[in-house]
Amino acid sequence: MNFGVIGYGYWGPNVARNLANLDGSQLSAIAEMSPAARARAQKAYPGVLVTPNACEVIQSPDIDAVAVITPVWTHYDLAKAALENGKHVFVEKPFTSTTQQAEELIELAARKNLRIMVDHTFLFTGAVRKIHQLVEDGTLGNLFYYDSTRVNLGLFQHDINVLWDLAPHDLSIMDHLLPGRPEAVVATGQRHLNGHEDIAFMTVYFPDRVIAHINVNWLSPVKVRTTLIGGEKRMLVWNDLEADEKIKIYDKGVDITSREGVYELLVSYRSGDMWAPQIEQVEALRHEMSYFVDCVTNGRDPHNDGLAGLRVVKMLEAASESLKKRGELVYL
Amino acid sequence: MNFGVIGYGYWGPNVARNLANLDGSQLSAIAEMSPAARARAQKAYPGVLVTPNACEVIQSPDIDAVAVITPVWTHYDLAKAALENGKHVFVEKPFTSTTQQAEELIELAARKNLRIMVDHTFLFTGAVRKIHQLVEDGTLGNLFYYDSTRVNLGLFQHDINVLWDLAPHDLSIMDHLLPGRPEAVVATGQRHLNGHEDIAFMTVYFPDRVIAHINVNWLSPVKVRTTLIGGEKRMLVWNDLEADEKIKIYDKGVDITSREGVYELLVSYRSGDMWAPQIEQVEALRHEMSYFVDCVTNGRDPHNDGLAGLRVVKMLEAASESLKKRGELVYL
Amino acid sequence: MNFGVIGYGYWGPNVARNLANLDGSQLSAIAEMSPAARARAQKAYPGVLVTPNACEVIQSPDIDAVAVITPVWTHYDLAKAALENGKHVFVEKPFTSTTQQAEELIELAARKNLRIMVDHTFLFTGAVRKIHQLVEDGTLGNLFYYDSTRVNLGLFQHDINVLWDLAPHDLSIMDHLLPGRPEAVVATGQRHLNGHEDIAFMTVYFPDRVIAHINVNWLSPVKVRTTLIGGEKRMLVWNDLEADEKIKIYDKGVDITSREGVYELLVSYRSGDMWAPQIEQVEALRHEMSYFVDCVTNGRDPHNDGLAGLRVVKMLEAASESLKKRGELVYL
Amino acid sequence: MNFGVIGYGYWGPNVARNLANLDGSQLSAIAEMSPAARARAQKAYPGVLVTPNACEVIQSPDIDAVAVITPVWTHYDLAKAALENGKHVFVEKPFTSTTQQAEELIELAARKNLRIMVDHTFLFTGAVRKIHQLVEDGTLGNLFYYDSTRVNLGLFQHDINVLWDLAPHDLSIMDHLLPGRPEAVVATGQRHLNGHEDIAFMTVYFPDRVIAHINVNWLSPVKVRTTLIGGEKRMLVWNDLEADEKIKIYDKGVDITSREGVYELLVSYRSGDMWAPQIEQVEALRHEMSYFVDCVTNGRDPHNDGLAGLRVVKMLEAASESLKKRGELVYL
Repeated sequence: MNFGVIGYGYWGPNVARNLANLDGSQLSAIAEMSPAARARAQKAYPGVLVTPNACEVIQSPDIDAVAVITPVWTHYDLAKAALENGKHVFVEKPFTSTTQQAEELIELAARKNLRIMVDHTFLFTGAVRKIHQLVEDGTLGNLFYYDSTRVNLGLFQHDINVLWDLAPHDLSIMDHLLPGRPEAVVATGQRHLNGHEDIAFMTVYFPDRVIAHINVNWLSPVKVRTTLIGGEKRMLVWNDLEADEKIKIYDKGVDITSREGVYELLVSYRSGDMWAPQIEQVEALRHEMSYFVDCVTNGRDPHNDGLAGLRVVKMLEAASESLKKRGELVYL
Repeated sequence: MNFGVIGYGYWGPNVARNLANLDGSQLSAIAEMSPAARARAQKAYPGVLVTPNACEVIQSPDIDAVAVITPVWTHYDLAKAALENGKHVFVEKPFTSTTQQAEELIELAARKNLRIMVDHTFLFTGAVRKIHQLVEDGTLGNLFYYDSTRVNLGLFQHDINVLWDLAPHDLSIMDHLLPGRPEAVVATGQRHLNGHEDIAFMTVYFPDRVIAHINVNWLSPVKVRTTLIGGEKRMLVWNDLEADEKIKIYDKGVDITSREGVYELLVSYRSGDMWAPQIEQVEALRHEMSYFVDCVTNGRDPHNDGLAGLRVVKMLEAASESLKKRGELVYL
Repeated sequence: MNFGVIGYGYWGPNVARNLANLDGSQLSAIAEMSPAARARAQKAYPGVLVTPNACEVIQSPDIDAVAVITPVWTHYDLAKAALENGKHVFVEKPFTSTTQQAEELIELAARKNLRIMVDHTFLFTGAVRKIHQLVEDGTLGNLFYYDSTRVNLGLFQHDINVLWDLAPHDLSIMDHLLPGRPEAVVATGQRHLNGHEDIAFMTVYFPDRVIAHINVNWLSPVKVRTTLIGGEKRMLVWNDLEADEKIKIYDKGVDITSREGVYELLVSYRSGDMWAPQIEQVEALRHEMSYFVDCVTNGRDPHNDGLAGLRVVKMLEAASESLKKRGELVYL
Repeated sequence: MNFGVIGYGYWGPNVARNLANLDGSQLSAIAEMSPAARARAQKAYPGVLVTPNACEVIQSPDIDAVAVITPVWTHYDLAKAALENGKHVFVEKPFTSTTQQAEELIELAARKNLRIMVDHTFLFTGAVRKIHQLVEDGTLGNLFYYDSTRVNLGLFQHDINVLWDLAPHDLSIMDHLLPGRPEAVVATGQRHLNGHEDIAFMTVYFPDRVIAHINVNWLSPVKVRTTLIGGEKRMLVWNDLEADEKIKIYDKGVDITSREGVYELLVSYRSGDMWAPQIEQVEALRHEMSYFVDCVTNGRDPHNDGLAGLRVVKMLEAASESLKKRGELVYL
């Protein structure tokens, strides 16, 4: 399977490297507008076509699939052109700038029987795979909440706010882990330095009293990547900055054993062992690209397909609207 | 100055102990409904009147001031009775259940020239005193945000939700530290085990783009007490669970040096030393009680007076309303 | 059982408090030379005899047992007098200043059929009890090493060096946990501020290639209480400063599966889950005093008897000798 | 300056990469015995001579300097051959297997006016450079001790024990930081899995009561890289595993203000702020190679020359002797 990569900035080189190394895929072309980045690409892959012209990649008859690793506002046009030229597409997250764009691309891909994969890389990390397993096998019990803090002194983006930059990670993870589809969104935040929010807080209401919350911030003096997930049976802390013990599962909880009268809610606390399961260390992106090749080859839609990308964009769009109206509830 | 303490449950013993030890105050009476707690009180203070009857304390002619350390829904009645009997009052936070109650008590105290102090203990910790100094002397520069996480496996309350239980700490600190008065509140949350929210998120909008956020949770497997405060010049992390280095100040930040065209926002990052100032270790409550004795003696209103208590209740009331309407903005 | 306590300085109040609260024991008398400490003792225990004269306690016919909580150089004389007066004795660690003193006291107690307990408090903590269980039930497999770091900015002692101050904790734990009796000791260290070593390192050789090491330091800017214990099957880290997860057990290790030729040692690493068992939270000293009362009542020698105390003193004596000779091996 | 690299195993690729990228140096040849490693080398540097034969590199007339990145027992022969062929040499640490070998190489280099640099990489890290500055400018005051813990689940070596593997880092740092030359060494340790010690403890006595201690261990379940350095004025903790705050300097200490009688040593504790200076992030090896090129070009001996390498080997040799004799003091 021959791949073209469009965009060789921050993340593109990782996608290119994995495509070059993977069995079953071949890196055939790279399009990139910056001459300096093109020089780096050509040095790393002497035998590969490196061009400033994305069309050259998209229209090349030798290429089966295109990876679009560019700013979000360019995704729609590039992915659309690729699909129209009969290419499968792998698109950086967030999928598109609007739900309408996402729906169009999904429809187009379906019509032409092509695959779309949205780069929700975190779903392929050892940590999220392990959490997914703990949710699926009932270790945590019914879920109560998902609460993530994702802050650091961040690279300011010109075209998007901090929610569009940092929240897609958590939104794709929530979409993957939590049962039921999100119902409504509330977002608050503030702009301090330019026209875009640099700090924001987002609540997502799910069915059955499941609630999710995301705290994102480009103005934090320390980097934090911590998620609490609370379940009826057990709770966990996922600290992605820990080298070895990323996930700690606590045999802790609250039982309401009976109610005697209005003021006599009998709550008992359970407190037991903690354990940190070993986490698989393979590079997430490698897993993901391999999965994409497999899906294309076998004509199956990946779980992180256009629809998954659309669901994330829908939540981002709703959050932006809520943000503008200072916390107004926006239904999905 | 003779003190009566009403309520000898979780926090009352600490108040009693400080009043018994302080120069300038004397512990004269303790009222408490639980026989077991009364026995403990009598054993600890053999010479002190211990009674099940709060009126006995409130009406005693020997008592100058009453400390009300009882559930919030009893504050108004007890404080009102004490004021009417000419006693100064020290009231556990939150001050009252409603703003109307708070306003009445303030008006009553003013009419009778009595002092009210609301037990915003955290304002008297070495950590908050140090942060206050750093804000006042301009070390942090203009403030951007206050973001606090205050979660643990918590004691469920029968009469209030997690916001009324845990948020008053941060609300009183914000009231003390942030310039300007809060303008509006957004709160979201969820109930899982009984009729009250056990997880909640609250955003407070201040003037000049200052934003505050509080994350409170009774269902967290780990205890977290971490606050980020971002300023234009420096940022700090306050981890109240650290034994020695509670406050870390980062000489980090973002400068926008110029703007060249729409897409060319030039952001430069500063990154310098971190330092952890030594924090005073004196017990906060001791500081506070001593300050109360001093205020009463000198006929001065403390900074944590009834008005400060009212401002916190106002935010809690607004948050409860917003919570009910799933994040609707409530103006203060 | 009536107790007299001699010494009401730093640790004595804790012993007195537990004796006063425990079922089966009664606190009858306290001897203490400092008038200020005597005043504190009398205030805390109004009905108890408080005296500057230790003899008054030792010779009182009402007293069954004496707790000697004084500097180490006074232990021998006080314990001897107590035993001669027919009292059981509880002695602060280290047991005595010399092995000869320890042997005399053991012999005297045996002759008079009295119990000696040496205050090796750490053996009664939830952490050490749990580790003991993990060793006994084979969870760790054959032990390889015990390596403890116990440093802080320490209270300088006038009469003893840092080894006599801090190492008894680890020596008593090693004596309790490790199979076999120690064979030889090497100690190094240095004096910087007064005549006694303020930093020292001690190696203890045990049979079967088990090795123990203790790092003690009064001049450390940070407090550390961390012990690594390596076993053939599993290894653990005990961090006594952690509030919740004091013990972490690692399913990690090294297997030597075969040897092919001189240079082909095939080593394979195992790396699995980590888990932190829940630790009992009861006060260790309470456990210990209760055990002492039980041992005296039933005429049984405790595991932390005079002989255990003697073994620790023997190691300290050997370490002091090795220290003087800059690391010379001293056999036990 | 043309470089040949001998050894392309674990560390060699880093040396090669820096030589290839540095201004002033050129990577001309790589010798490596493993065919797989040679293939990797040739792929990474298509234009460079890659050969199984070290002689080809050593005897090449085009090569000015040789980097010897092979097991320690091969250093002497390779470096000697390189020097005899007129090449400057960069040698992996530890310099040689014996002091005699080191002395011969130093003598040979001097005779032929060639440079030797021993790869004491840590001296070029931002952390050690900062500590060196703090020692030199008197921030710490007179030094009391250097105490390092360097443990992890380690790659077993076939030819050397854990001291020769891990201690050279600390020995070279001590040699660089501490005033005065080491006087004597004591080492203890134990073998558990093969013929070499896998856990060892080493004390080094310096003049003026300065003492150093190194704890190395291949059987630790957790990785630790922590060094305490105590000075008369201030103390520091260097945790090399911290991403951002590797060095913390504590304004803490002990003053002996006066002595009144034998038992009245008046010790007062100072306790002030902690601060973590910003550490330079440049790759240490890049610094070091650049310094080597500079030293060769200008005919100057580097501070990490053969003599520095010899001093480290001398301490290792003494430690091995002490280890064999279970802690016997060995003078240097």
